[in-house]
Amino acid sequence: MNPISPVRIGLLGRGTVGSAFESLLSERAEEIAAMTGRRPELTGVLRRSEGDFDQILADSEIVIEVIGGTEPARDYVLRALDAGKHVVSANKQLIAQHGDELFEAARAKGVQLRFEAAVAGVVPVIRVIQESLAATEITKVFGIVNGTTNFILSEMASTGASYEEVLARAQELGYAEADPTEDVNGADAAAKMAILARLAFHAPVSLDDVSFEGIEAIQPDDLAYAKELGLSLKLLGVAERIDGGLSVRVFPCFLYRGHPLAPVEGPFNAVMVEAPTITEITMSGPGAGGTETATAVLGDVVSIVSGRAPVHAVRTSLEIVRDISSSFYLHLEVADRPGVLAQIADVLGRNEISVRSVVQRGHGNDARLVMVMHEGPERRFRAALDEIAPLDFVRAAPRAIRVIEEEFV
Amino acid sequence: MNPISPVRIGLLGRGTVGSAFESLLSERAEEIAAMTGRRPELTGVLRRSEGDFDQILADSEIVIEVIGGTEPARDYVLRALDAGKHVVSANKQLIAQHGDELFEAARAKGVQLRFEAAVAGVVPVIRVIQESLAATEITKVFGIVNGTTNFILSEMASTGASYEEVLARAQELGYAEADPTEDVNGADAAAKMAILARLAFHAPVSLDDVSFEGIEAIQPDDLAYAKELGLSLKLLGVAERIDGGLSVRVFPCFLYRGHPLAPVEGPFNAVMVEAPTITEITMSGPGAGGTETATAVLGDVVSIVSGRAPVHAVRTSLEIVRDISSSFYLHLEVADRPGVLAQIADVLGRNEISVRSVVQRGHGNDARLVMVMHEGPERRFRAALDEIAPLDFVRAAPRAIRVIEEEFV
Repeated sequence: MNPISPVRIGLLGRGTVGSAFESLLSERAEEIAAMTGRRPELTGVLRRSEGDFDQILADSEIVIEVIGGTEPARDYVLRALDAGKHVVSANKQLIAQHGDELFEAARAKGVQLRFEAAVAGVVPVIRVIQESLAATEITKVFGIVNGTTNFILSEMASTGASYEEVLARAQELGYAEADPTEDVNGADAAAKMAILARLAFHAPVSLDDVSFEGIEAIQPDDLAYAKELGLSLKLLGVAERIDGGLSVRVFPCFLYRGHPLAPVEGPFNAVMVEAPTITEITMSGPGAGGTETATAVLGDVVSIVSGRAPVHAVRTSLEIVRDISSSFYLHLEVADRPGVLAQIADVLGRNEISVRSVVQRGHGNDARLVMVMHEGPERRFRAALDEIAPLDFVRAAPRAIRVIEEEFV
Repeated sequence: MNPISPVRIGLLGRGTVGSAFESLLSERAEEIAAMTGRRPELTGVLRRSEGDFDQILADSEIVIEVIGGTEPARDYVLRALDAGKHVVSANKQLIAQHGDELFEAARAKGVQLRFEAAVAGVVPVIRVIQESLAATEITKVFGIVNGTTNFILSEMASTGASYEEVLARAQELGYAEADPTEDVNGADAAAKMAILARLAFHAPVSLDDVSFEGIEAIQPDDLAYAKELGLSLKLLGVAERIDGGLSVRVFPCFLYRGHPLAPVEGPFNAVMVEAPTITEITMSGPGAGGTETATAVLGDVVSIVSGRAPVHAVRTSLEIVRDISSSFYLHLEVADRPGVLAQIADVLGRNEISVRSVVQRGHGNDARLVMVMHEGPERRFRAALDEIAPLDFVRAAPRAIRVIEEEFV
């Protein structure tokens, strides 16, 4: 046996994830030494108030970036890669916005850049897509990649409380930040989907290519109707090949019971990967949390110590497709008078939208029409909606939410 | 850029998986060349009727074993490893029964032995446990690792048909073999759990250490009662650390609705991994199928071409724990007369088994008592059962099935 040699690790950032990583690393150092023949040693920690980046860089073989945000994280990571150091990052914005530049730097120096923790926490989606499925022609990657919104939607569904009430509770429990904008408007999920799309399809995908909608407008009665219809509401990220092009988007969406993502509740994340040769794989688990995220970072560190892995490379370019086919739930507040349903059905029919189910509730000025459509091009549904909204008997802005129709065995 | 060099691959076995691998490899060769800089080339195929092992071995850098069974697969794999070739195997019996010898040979020669396809088909459980969670102290690995039995139980639950009827249908559909013994008696799942336990706990686990029960005795009315109680029945494999020891077992088990494994239906597999630092990760997908299994094999090939990975090594020894705590469902056919429930409750009480719920059905000589117990040591429940079975009002052998009580959010 060779003697155990040290592997020197520099840590940038010491917030929740950084602290958890520090203690996990010291706890598991002997195990890693036994496994790889090299004992990890923390050579320096960079915090706002202490540490010198250049010194840490000079002393380290692997640099861990858990600062978050794009600057100075981008600068540090680039300098580390340029200096021939392996890098592990937990930073979704950094990878989504500056991935091209960073991958190029890693390739040029023959070093690894790993970032499992940047998407879905400890759920191993990055490794599975990049390694297990490296040679698989993936057709679709989709799932729940934001724990804050999944917690809010789960709570709204189970308690009947409003978005605002549940958001306040999520903030108390630490599931939502003081400024939850990026989570609830879908931007956080969009960054993660840009990363997944890039890895799954080997194509350049920038944040601008991802269209996103959030959950701010969801009403408790959408969830009440959904329960009646056997549906559960999730904020979904979807990246898929469509007709030789590519579509990446984030939107709230109803799932029928029996869909593998329907039972994913609370702050959990889940990602499904589809390809003709694999049917589908589903992975789920905690999408955040200090030790969970630190465990994902540590997994990447051990992989670097064990050997090399492919660095992501763009190998194709795919057009971004905007005209998607979807099924919709439509919630209308209407005056209850003869001919209302007929007029709406007429608009839908002229736009070639076919109706799957209709529920009518209430009467007089408080009537509601809740309809679920069969799948069709979104632009046709939007055209129908533009005709329906101004009709004189429609008493409030219509609410439309996508529905995944597919039912699983 | 370096020029593309070939990587020569020998294929042992050309059944369903072998053929699927052959066509997948030729389909994806250019993609793999672009990704790794090396183009895979099939240098030879060994079938019963053609091919020369020594020639294939001499011509190959990587040997794929998809023959199945222990001999001659063991001999071939050992000779390939000894000759310094990397090996990818899809053979659960080989790894479960001869893992020690094979891992040692791989370590001695510094080559890789990969076997993702041996457990849960394309579901990436081996990679996630060995790589993502390499430095994680896993406490429990459990799941549905046999697709045949999961298909049979799903069908029995949804159609009400008997075990024999559904088995015949599974054989027609190709989900069960002509001789389904190894699947339905739990032996197949036991081999897979031996592999998972070994990898998760870095301890020696032999097939003899795994206790297993099958699904042959399950009755349609067990499933009917289960539906009433909100339960679904699965054949579970469980490997867990208990009090510094280890328990590995396979048994049919009820899950409450909301458990992540409850919605896994048909021939799908699913595995959950638990550790304090990750809470839990769940992975699911097709557990068999030619292209699915071939995709798992190809993922291993690409990993070998991309770089080295740790070879499994035993690092600890754990005692096999036999006295497990479980919750049970108990089905009794009894004569309907006063005092029956009291006598049974007395036996349970004296054995310190507490009852969670009781359902009584029928009357006269056709009465049924269906009870669900709270968790307690299995030996106490077995002792109670030994007292209950011979009671004069018990009209048929009691049926006991484990229940997972834990309900998930």
